[in-house]
Amino acid sequence: MELWFTEKQTENFGITAKVNKSLHTEKTDFQQLDMIQTKEFGNMLVLDGMVMTTEKDEFVYHEMVTHPVLFTHPNPKHVLVVGGGDGGAIREVLKHPQVEKVVLVEIDGKVIEYSKKYLPSIAGKLDDARVEVLVDDGFMHIHKNKNQYDVIMVDSTEPVGPAAPLFERGFYQGIYESLKEDGLFVAQTDNPWFKSELIKKVFKDVREIFPITKLYTCNIPTYPSGMWTFTIGSKKYDPEAVDISTIPEIDTKYYTPKIHKACFVLPRFVELLTK
Amino acid sequence: MELWFTEKQTENFGITAKVNKSLHTEKTDFQQLDMIQTKEFGNMLVLDGMVMTTEKDEFVYHEMVTHPVLFTHPNPKHVLVVGGGDGGAIREVLKHPQVEKVVLVEIDGKVIEYSKKYLPSIAGKLDDARVEVLVDDGFMHIHKNKNQYDVIMVDSTEPVGPAAPLFERGFYQGIYESLKEDGLFVAQTDNPWFKSELIKKVFKDVREIFPITKLYTCNIPTYPSGMWTFTIGSKKYDPEAVDISTIPEIDTKYYTPKIHKACFVLPRFVELLTK
Repeated sequence: MELWFTEKQTENFGITAKVNKSLHTEKTDFQQLDMIQTKEFGNMLVLDGMVMTTEKDEFVYHEMVTHPVLFTHPNPKHVLVVGGGDGGAIREVLKHPQVEKVVLVEIDGKVIEYSKKYLPSIAGKLDDARVEVLVDDGFMHIHKNKNQYDVIMVDSTEPVGPAAPLFERGFYQGIYESLKEDGLFVAQTDNPWFKSELIKKVFKDVREIFPITKLYTCNIPTYPSGMWTFTIGSKKYDPEAVDISTIPEIDTKYYTPKIHKACFVLPRFVELLTK
Repeated sequence: MELWFTEKQTENFGITAKVNKSLHTEKTDFQQLDMIQTKEFGNMLVLDGMVMTTEKDEFVYHEMVTHPVLFTHPNPKHVLVVGGGDGGAIREVLKHPQVEKVVLVEIDGKVIEYSKKYLPSIAGKLDDARVEVLVDDGFMHIHKNKNQYDVIMVDSTEPVGPAAPLFERGFYQGIYESLKEDGLFVAQTDNPWFKSELIKKVFKDVREIFPITKLYTCNIPTYPSGMWTFTIGSKKYDPEAVDISTIPEIDTKYYTPKIHKACFVLPRFVELLTK
C-alpha cells in the first residue's frame, strides 16, 4: 500500500507527499496534531491538516522569522516568541549572544511535547538555560507584559483555529505595548498568491500602529505557493537601514547579510499589496 | 465526479490541481501534450505530465527569463528563443523596442498550435511582424547560425525527453558560438531543492565557456519547490553591474529594476551550488 498525505492549500490546489508511516495522531485541546514520516521532507508536523514544519525545509522559515529582526535591533536582550512550539525559532534566537532571555508562549503543550520527541533537530534547544517555556495564551501574555520585550516574533499557525486572534488589529496594538520603546516585531503573514487580502489587511493594520512597517519574503517548498511573507512593525529601527557589513557570521543555510537586504525587494504584484 | 491532476515533481512529492475539464490531449511526435482547465491556475499546458505554464502564474517565468538578460545587453537587436512554443517569452521580448527581430525555434509545432488556441494571453504575440517562428531543432539551429545573436534564451522543458540535449556542455558551447562577440544567454535550470546536482553541473559547464556566469531565482507556485533558477552565461556584460536607474518602465507584474538586482542574491544553500 502507498500512503500519501495531501494538503489542500486552497479548495482547488494542494501538495501531496509520500508517507512512510504515521508517528503520532491526536486531537489536542486546540487542534488536530499529526506527526508523519515523509520520504521527501523527513518528519513533518501537521496541525489541522496543514504542514507546519518539516525536517528538510524548516531552516528557511526559522532563520527568516528570527534573523532579520534580531539583526535590526542593536541589542536584543529580551525576546518573545508567540507560538513556535516546535522550537525552531528558539534555536535560531539562541545564535544571538546578546539575547539574555527568550520566552516561548505556546498555547498547545502537545506541540512542544511531540516536537521534542519527533523533531529533535528543531526542538533540541528548548531546554537551554536562556529559554523560558510557557504553555499559555499568547494574546493574554502580551496584554499582561507591557514594555517588556526588545523583539517579538509571532510564529503562528494560519489564521483559522487557535491562531485567529493573532491576525487581528488588537493583537498588534498589544504587541506595540508589550515592546520597549525601541522594540520591533515580526509575524508570519502567509503567501501572496492565495492570501493577498490577508497580507494587505495585516500590513494596513500594522502600519496604523507602528512608524516603520515592512514586508519581506522567502521560499518554503512545503508552504502554499512556495513564497512566504513576513510583516515587520518597528518603533525605531528600520530593517532595511541596517549596515549589513556589521552583521557577524552565523551558522545558517538560508539567511545571509545580503539576503537581509534582498528579502525586502518585492515582486511588483507583492509590492502592490503594501500600497 | 471530481477530477484532479497530480504531478509527481519527485518520486515522493507532488502538486495536485482540481480540473474543470480536459481541453486537449495528444501524443505528438515528441511528447505527451495535455491542455487542461484548472480551477486555481486557469488553463494549464502539461507536457509529459509536467506543468509547463498556467494562465495565472506564467508571468513570473516569462518576465524573469527575458528581462534580466535583455536589460543587461545595451542594444539587443537580434534575439533567439529556443523552445518557448507557448509564446510567453516572445511576448516579453517584444516589450523591448530595440529588438528588431526575435526568432523562436520550437521543436514541437503542436505546442505552438495549442498554445495559440487555449493560451491566447500568453501566445498572442507569436504573429507579430518582428517574430520569426521556426518549427525546428534548437540544437541544430544554433550550430547552423554562428555569430548571429545578441541574446539567446533557452526556454526548455525539463532535462528528460526532447530537451535532454539542451542541458549538455556541447549545447552551451554552441550557444557561445551562435552569440555575437558581446552576447549573453540565459537558460532555465530547474530548482535547488530537488535538482541541486543539475544546477551545479550546468553552472560549472557554463563557467568553463563564458567569462561571466550568474545564477538567479524567482518564485513560481506551480513549478517544483516554488523556487526556480536561471543560469546566465555572458561574454562581456555583467547582469549585476547594470545601472538599474537607467532601466525604463515596462509593464510587468513580477520584474522591477530592484528585482533585477535582488534576484541574484542567493540563499546560502543555493549560493553553495555555484562554488
